[in-house]
Amino acid sequence: MLLALLGANVARAEDGYDLWLRYRPLPQAEAAAVRAHAAQLVIGGASPTQEVTRQELLRGLGGLLGGAPVVASTVSADGAIVVGTPASSAQIAGLHLDLRALGHDGYLIRSVVVAGHPATVVAANDDVGALYGAFHLLRLVQTGQALDKLDVREWPRLKLRVLNHWDDLNRHTERGYAGQSIWDWQKLPDWLDPRYTDYARANASLGINGTVLNNVNANAAILTAPYLEKVKALAGVMRPYGIRVYLSVKFSAPIEIGGLKTADPLDPQVQKWWRAKADEVYALIPDFGGFLVKANSEGQPGPQDYGRNHADGANMLADALQPHGGVLMWRAFVYSQENRDDRAKQAYAEFKPLDGKFRSNVLLQVKNGPIDFQPREPFNPLFGAMPKTPLMMEFQITKEYLGFATHLAYLGTMFEETLSSDTMSRGKGSTVAKVIDGQLDGHQLTGIAGVANIGTDRDWCGSDFNQANWYAFGRLAWNPTESARSIAADWVRMTFTDEAAFVTPVVDMMMGSREAVVDYMTPLGLHHLMGHGHHYGPAPWDATGPRADWTPVYYHRADHDGIGFDRTSTGSNAVAQYAPPLAAKFNDPATTPEVFLLWFHHLPWSYRMQSGQTLWNELVMHYTRGVDTVGQMRDTWGRVGSHIDAERYQKASTFLAIQQKEALWWRDASIAYFQSLNGLPLPAGVAPPQHPLSYYESLSFPFVPGY
Amino acid sequence: MLLALLGANVARAEDGYDLWLRYRPLPQAEAAAVRAHAAQLVIGGASPTQEVTRQELLRGLGGLLGGAPVVASTVSADGAIVVGTPASSAQIAGLHLDLRALGHDGYLIRSVVVAGHPATVVAANDDVGALYGAFHLLRLVQTGQALDKLDVREWPRLKLRVLNHWDDLNRHTERGYAGQSIWDWQKLPDWLDPRYTDYARANASLGINGTVLNNVNANAAILTAPYLEKVKALAGVMRPYGIRVYLSVKFSAPIEIGGLKTADPLDPQVQKWWRAKADEVYALIPDFGGFLVKANSEGQPGPQDYGRNHADGANMLADALQPHGGVLMWRAFVYSQENRDDRAKQAYAEFKPLDGKFRSNVLLQVKNGPIDFQPREPFNPLFGAMPKTPLMMEFQITKEYLGFATHLAYLGTMFEETLSSDTMSRGKGSTVAKVIDGQLDGHQLTGIAGVANIGTDRDWCGSDFNQANWYAFGRLAWNPTESARSIAADWVRMTFTDEAAFVTPVVDMMMGSREAVVDYMTPLGLHHLMGHGHHYGPAPWDATGPRADWTPVYYHRADHDGIGFDRTSTGSNAVAQYAPPLAAKFNDPATTPEVFLLWFHHLPWSYRMQSGQTLWNELVMHYTRGVDTVGQMRDTWGRVGSHIDAERYQKASTFLAIQQKEALWWRDASIAYFQSLNGLPLPAGVAPPQHPLSYYESLSFPFVPGY
Repeated sequence: MLLALLGANVARAEDGYDLWLRYRPLPQAEAAAVRAHAAQLVIGGASPTQEVTRQELLRGLGGLLGGAPVVASTVSADGAIVVGTPASSAQIAGLHLDLRALGHDGYLIRSVVVAGHPATVVAANDDVGALYGAFHLLRLVQTGQALDKLDVREWPRLKLRVLNHWDDLNRHTERGYAGQSIWDWQKLPDWLDPRYTDYARANASLGINGTVLNNVNANAAILTAPYLEKVKALAGVMRPYGIRVYLSVKFSAPIEIGGLKTADPLDPQVQKWWRAKADEVYALIPDFGGFLVKANSEGQPGPQDYGRNHADGANMLADALQPHGGVLMWRAFVYSQENRDDRAKQAYAEFKPLDGKFRSNVLLQVKNGPIDFQPREPFNPLFGAMPKTPLMMEFQITKEYLGFATHLAYLGTMFEETLSSDTMSRGKGSTVAKVIDGQLDGHQLTGIAGVANIGTDRDWCGSDFNQANWYAFGRLAWNPTESARSIAADWVRMTFTDEAAFVTPVVDMMMGSREAVVDYMTPLGLHHLMGHGHHYGPAPWDATGPRADWTPVYYHRADHDGIGFDRTSTGSNAVAQYAPPLAAKFNDPATTPEVFLLWFHHLPWSYRMQSGQTLWNELVMHYTRGVDTVGQMRDTWGRVGSHIDAERYQKASTFLAIQQKEALWWRDASIAYFQSLNGLPLPAGVAPPQHPLSYYESLSFPFVPGY
Repeated sequence: MLLALLGANVARAEDGYDLWLRYRPLPQAEAAAVRAHAAQLVIGGASPTQEVTRQELLRGLGGLLGGAPVVASTVSADGAIVVGTPASSAQIAGLHLDLRALGHDGYLIRSVVVAGHPATVVAANDDVGALYGAFHLLRLVQTGQALDKLDVREWPRLKLRVLNHWDDLNRHTERGYAGQSIWDWQKLPDWLDPRYTDYARANASLGINGTVLNNVNANAAILTAPYLEKVKALAGVMRPYGIRVYLSVKFSAPIEIGGLKTADPLDPQVQKWWRAKADEVYALIPDFGGFLVKANSEGQPGPQDYGRNHADGANMLADALQPHGGVLMWRAFVYSQENRDDRAKQAYAEFKPLDGKFRSNVLLQVKNGPIDFQPREPFNPLFGAMPKTPLMMEFQITKEYLGFATHLAYLGTMFEETLSSDTMSRGKGSTVAKVIDGQLDGHQLTGIAGVANIGTDRDWCGSDFNQANWYAFGRLAWNPTESARSIAADWVRMTFTDEAAFVTPVVDMMMGSREAVVDYMTPLGLHHLMGHGHHYGPAPWDATGPRADWTPVYYHRADHDGIGFDRTSTGSNAVAQYAPPLAAKFNDPATTPEVFLLWFHHLPWSYRMQSGQTLWNELVMHYTRGVDTVGQMRDTWGRVGSHIDAERYQKASTFLAIQQKEALWWRDASIAYFQSLNGLPLPAGVAPPQHPLSYYESLSFPFVPGY
């Protein structure tokens, strides 16, 4: 350990900064095999994107192979890599490749012969496609793929693949557990932190092509001239990497910074103000992406303040953006303080009637589930219910409800579960993925958003394993039907090591990790039982707070006799928002998947589960299993640690210990609370909670990050 | 630039993280010369401090020389380095060195002969002295000193050399411009970020031996059991490096977390609560340093809330700490919202009558000047005025009033100016340094505090040059009579390069940098003209705010006829708080140093300066000169950039451009404002402000960091 620090003082600490783009030297034999395919690099540098593509290949291959390939203007030796477009490269044009189906962002990677020499071509219609292809080629090298018979064709299934930063202008990040916002607004536009470029590189490596810089709980100041100059500077960093910047805007900005008396979307002055503001933005940033809006949601202003509906609001902004090709992303995450109806139903009730009422440059951004980024939710019933409106997925990459920075929870499986859910809206196979990629209802404008988990922490995401969630989001944004397991395997190989003795158990550990969180926090369809406001730790007893639907008791409805939220036809009837076959299935506890049981049903503690156990016993079993799984994760990690660097091993090791402690806290507090209601004994052999309920209730956490 | 990134992917980006402990390879000839004196390393590893000393020498010499010396148990070859104490090393004991005057922390470094071999001995009475000596030896190597005839004797002049972190438990740092607090409370006590160790190393390299972890605007929660466990974990990291942890405590903690109805220091229950709390702290952390208190100051609770005085409050806490050897640091930074008297006079008025009333383990912590960390202030009149009380200096390292992160302002000169100021309290030569080091009044308990500029930014301090202020504070805390210039030269050599063509102009630039800030912000004794609350940028026009003495107009008192704060015997008579010869000097504008002119005097714009110019013309000249100096700094930096890495060159270059822009803003806004009052023309040839006054007044900065 100590000796590793000595010597030529060149050993970099493995601090996670390099993400999955580490480019550390390959083992000798592997490097030799790759070198035969990387003797020359033939690539233009005429555009900024071509330039960064070349830099990345030199950096990546240079690192992986211990030396970069020779840059040549034409292929003159065996083993060239030729990168570009028919327009940028005569040799690529001469190959007459069929690039028609690849679109703007797609690429192919093929083993070919150029000027009599075996070569690898990375070809695209556009510079950015070639950049994506270059990253793909690097990934093949990083993950030890053979390069002799390549025939890869890739294109993204979704048009907009964006991160949402819930970053405030004071650098606080709402629900951020990785330090501050990486945007150093105070020093912008002058100082461009090199980290911005590394951020762009990481995103481009996944095909992410947009970033919303600021919090959806927006501050109008972002649209003032000084901040737009700062945004312009960031856009300049992102541009070569094919990433457009977007802004969250506050609906009341015309009042707050425009000096108007109203923000009524039907008011001509308001419309004029937004048109002028859009003109101002595009004059500075011609490829600006557009706006994201949270309106009439959790206290944010919106069109309903003026008796207008969400379409009125969205369309007014869309009209301002339309002349510039901008997109308006309108969030469907709404629920009202006045509306006493089941919160899970409200977004659907609000938006479904507006289907077909939105401008063509509007995307409705819908959270994966009907509540709020819980460890598990059924898919949001809006998916499939608004065929005339392009719906954009909103996933949360940051782990607001899944243990913050320290819990190991690979979200690839969660994203996959939602994307592969069948809405049945046009019969079997109408998956959420097909809704958002446009094929089900014939939309061209498509998109997906991930609420970023990125901050100033050296490892970007608060832990090394959290990087996998950024990575998985990006890969699924490119292709929503990819497998979470294969994505995890790629990530592990690129981030840690290619050794199978490490990869296999660690991928297995990741694949089970999110289910462990569900088990120890909110099993069997329970949801939103976290501490009020900050969402740290269990608080199922909490019945206080400014509104009922922010309290755990609203969601679990447990008492002496039973537990669960009745969303059947005899309850809130939320089931009716799903397609009829699903509605029928969810309406009956016997046919409801048990993972959603208490989401849809209020049942007696004695309810008999498929296992034959009572609901109470099964619930306790799940809590216990969650804790046990974390213990197994620690064991796994302990066994494989010798394959990787001490720094990252030690950190993940400590974090797993924290996770185990907090998993037990979740289990024990939850069991103690529910047992205080039902008075039932624990199943035989099950450990009782370590402390009395009063202990768990007494804990308070005044300085939780991200809140 | 690009090629530097390639190759064996071992080149670390120069991101500033390594501070002055970079240990990059010396030039070949220099390394060869050092190797002759570093053939062996003879050092024990029996204690944690010995262990970290050995690690540091191996790391440092390994890096500087391209390979670490051989570790040996006894000297067996020429060129050994022998490190330790007579107790830890028989060979050191055998040298019979005179270590008596070195105390606990001192050391000597001497060229000696051991077992017939030329050797370098680093000897001390205590392990921590040997650690300090090891850092000194490394510094000699880093700065290119000859090692053949060493005879260094060093010991600290002050006993407590501490940093004050104004860090909140939510990781916000008050007046911090370098990201978040480095203390990741959420993950403590489990996760010990390796950065904590690097923090300890950096401080130990300067002899800093204490750190107050939390903001003087304290939250009582720091004294609750969960937080004390976290503090204990940090203390464990600091301990081997000779650094004790201290806490800022809130005077009302007995009410807030103790359940008492009062915090009256004369109440037996309150006394008992604090004694029990101190016992609890020391049971966890036996070498805990003590408490720091901000009481009855800017809204903080204190003994005056109960009709008691500051000595009552301090002594009650001191009594609780006394059985454990703890120290109570009580801040003298008080001024009252009710008291209409000159704010500059209030601390003196409050504390001078209490001289002799404090317990022996109380230190009174006094800011360098009577107002608040301005770019320039006369020394605080409390220095020299309380001979029976040990006064501890409080400097501000973070640049709250000196341009935040981006302005290059080397504060070594400012610290030096205060320390070398003559209080005349016991006749000529009664410098502030002699007050705080105890020699003037015979105190054993002595100390100095610096409000840290450290945060999570990769470069720790928000800029590479800000690191010099941490460094200079530490060196002056060890020896308050060291020269700011020689400290700067050491820092430049260790941080950038030893090349004279770089060192000389950069040290010159640093030495003039703080005067430039004084010139473009608040020349000739002006003070506190910064934007309200956040202190970013000029706002001399500001007359709003919750209290008069937080507004610029309170301090400059400018009108059509003149400018300045009359603190003479016909004004507030603040001059009378200084020793009689100084009081007389400051009472007369003709004998007042012009740098303090408007601090002590209200004068007509036509007042004739020593230069023969009118006050108005001279004021304009200073503002202009400040801007010009920054331009010259940019020129200097541009000329020497080729000597260092592109990363740090580019960053400082951008920051200097920001500084120049903001210096011009300060100049122009100030001139525009004062001209709006006096209606006087600018001197011939002087550029008018770029914008009208209304423009400067219209600027607002809602998201300034650190506020």
